Amino acid sequence: MTPYVGIVGGGQLGRMLALAAAPLGVNCGVLDPSPTAGGRVAADHTIAAFDEIDALREMAAKSDVVTFEFENVSAPALEAIESRAKLAPPTRALETSQDRLDEKQLFSKLGIPIATYATVDSFAELETAFDGIAGPAILKTRRFGYDGKGQATIEDSSDLARAWASVGESPCVIERRIAFDRELSVIAVRSSSGEIAVYPPTENLHVSGILRTSKAPAELGDDLTHVANAFVTKLLTELDYVGVLALELFDVEGELIANEFAPRVHNSGHWTIDAAPTSQFENHIRAILDLPLGSTSPVTECLMVNLIGDSPELGSLLAVPGAHVHLYDKEPRAGRKVGHVTVTATDGLDLDSASRRVLDLVSASTV
Amino acid sequence: MTPYVGIVGGGQLGRMLALAAAPLGVNCGVLDPSPTAGGRVAADHTIAAFDEIDALREMAAKSDVVTFEFENVSAPALEAIESRAKLAPPTRALETSQDRLDEKQLFSKLGIPIATYATVDSFAELETAFDGIAGPAILKTRRFGYDGKGQATIEDSSDLARAWASVGESPCVIERRIAFDRELSVIAVRSSSGEIAVYPPTENLHVSGILRTSKAPAELGDDLTHVANAFVTKLLTELDYVGVLALELFDVEGELIANEFAPRVHNSGHWTIDAAPTSQFENHIRAILDLPLGSTSPVTECLMVNLIGDSPELGSLLAVPGAHVHLYDKEPRAGRKVGHVTVTATDGLDLDSASRRVLDLVSASTV
Repeated sequence: MTPYVGIVGGGQLGRMLALAAAPLGVNCGVLDPSPTAGGRVAADHTIAAFDEIDALREMAAKSDVVTFEFENVSAPALEAIESRAKLAPPTRALETSQDRLDEKQLFSKLGIPIATYATVDSFAELETAFDGIAGPAILKTRRFGYDGKGQATIEDSSDLARAWASVGESPCVIERRIAFDRELSVIAVRSSSGEIAVYPPTENLHVSGILRTSKAPAELGDDLTHVANAFVTKLLTELDYVGVLALELFDVEGELIANEFAPRVHNSGHWTIDAAPTSQFENHIRAILDLPLGSTSPVTECLMVNLIGDSPELGSLLAVPGAHVHLYDKEPRAGRKVGHVTVTATDGLDLDSASRRVLDLVSASTV
Repeated sequence: MTPYVGIVGGGQLGRMLALAAAPLGVNCGVLDPSPTAGGRVAADHTIAAFDEIDALREMAAKSDVVTFEFENVSAPALEAIESRAKLAPPTRALETSQDRLDEKQLFSKLGIPIATYATVDSFAELETAFDGIAGPAILKTRRFGYDGKGQATIEDSSDLARAWASVGESPCVIERRIAFDRELSVIAVRSSSGEIAVYPPTENLHVSGILRTSKAPAELGDDLTHVANAFVTKLLTELDYVGVLALELFDVEGELIANEFAPRVHNSGHWTIDAAPTSQFENHIRAILDLPLGSTSPVTECLMVNLIGDSPELGSLLAVPGAHVHLYDKEPRAGRKVGHVTVTATDGLDLDSASRRVLDLVSASTV
């Protein structure tokens, strides 16, 4: 029997999951409200809202397992899926990542260092908490934040009122702003039978809360790599996790501090398509179908560059030696991820020079 | 505008073309009579016979360029396509490859060595020609032969009547059977603006006329590699070719003799998906859209093993380090190619030992 995977969400992550599933003989159904979503590469496409219970149930009934490309799936949606099919990653992982307080408490329980923080449910609490942090801080809504949304920076107490208004006076956490040396992430995968594989950490650069580039592998040294691996392995094990998970970290003078985790394939793992023997997307599909995992050792160094807002002319990108282009079939729109490019250092190529050419092209098209 | 490519044929080659096109932001429409053809990974699927002129015209009208996964497209079908869209590879390449006599005459014109042959239009001509060849021979229908069909071997004159019957008394060529040391092929690609890229030759093993394994790169030495490159480059240039072309060769004591060419992506080039920076499928899409070609230098050694008739259990294949599985979503049937596996030698892996494990699994499932 051909395995069948239901995917909630037909953006670029759902699209790349479906593309990775096909060679394994795995058919995918994608559920997304947009008729032009990336699910056009999947075997089936259900046009439905993410909270349309009947549509979710129907897709689940056809599926061996249902997965998703974003973590903000509602509790009723998760229940509807689980009434008809296996769900991976597990509900607990989603629920924990949906609430920044739960997430921080989980990190603490596992001995994974995090920034000093406090919960904030009122403006009075915000004032008290900021006093306690005694330095620049970030106010984040506890739920439903991504790509820098639902966040406000606070330099001093004159920012408090604006910050509280900008998060809609919702329940928040306030955390000390970390003066990090660099941003890292580590992508790992665990199958339902408990096999774990970890990709080498990547070094990431965000601008305005949106990931711009990832360099893989990060120049990290064995000790820090070991620490990053230990952190993500603890998370996977504690959550009885199934699938790919991304853990975002800060490197602060050689100490790794956890920022957050994403219970899904992750933008900072896109390099694995072109520079690892098995991509994060294929390993996610393998894991949720309880198939043996594939190698996570990089074949070559790689720089991944996001295409934000718009894309340079396709031919100009493909003319760069070592460049691999991934477009998401999305209309250009300011701040929207419409594709990514990786540059790999095969064939004796000078990675730095090829990377500069791609970065020049991309910065001219970024909106 | 999103480029759109029409593909005639939704078997594994059409499927892998569509999978390679998607990351470039290229949408594909696949035309195939089977509703369950591999075209399920394409944006659109037209269920129609390959000679249904209206359906071909309709797909062509939506396409920037139309290509095909098999060479036996009829002349009226080619005309219908060309009335509405660009066609690549060009008609002349298809027509030449459809007729073994035309093909041999082209090879001879280009100074590419071939086996001694004669045309055969009657039993009397067959007798005369076999006398002239004076040794074991192969009788092949001039048109529409593939995977060993439309062919008969002749050891001595007592085989002539059976052979003539088995090819349906059609116009044929008879050629001296080559006592080759090994079978090779070379895959190359030419874009509409004339850029050419050549993959290193592969060494192929056929059983009963069906390709079983390809080893890439073949251990060939610089001189023979140069000869193979020169042959395929001459062909591409002479035909004003656009797209991927495969040239099959015999190595006879260090001399390369051409067998035939295929004006399309080719089974012996499947290794390029996992072991080259740019696959033959991606380079075909790039070429026919006149985009810059990608690198054809292998990243690693690779063995490609076809899955014939049926496939071993998926988990058993994926458990082999370095194995990459490609299933075509086709029902098992004796002699049918239902998938392929590549074994790559990344990460310090012992390619021979991993290859043996895959070959053992595959030989147990081959029917």
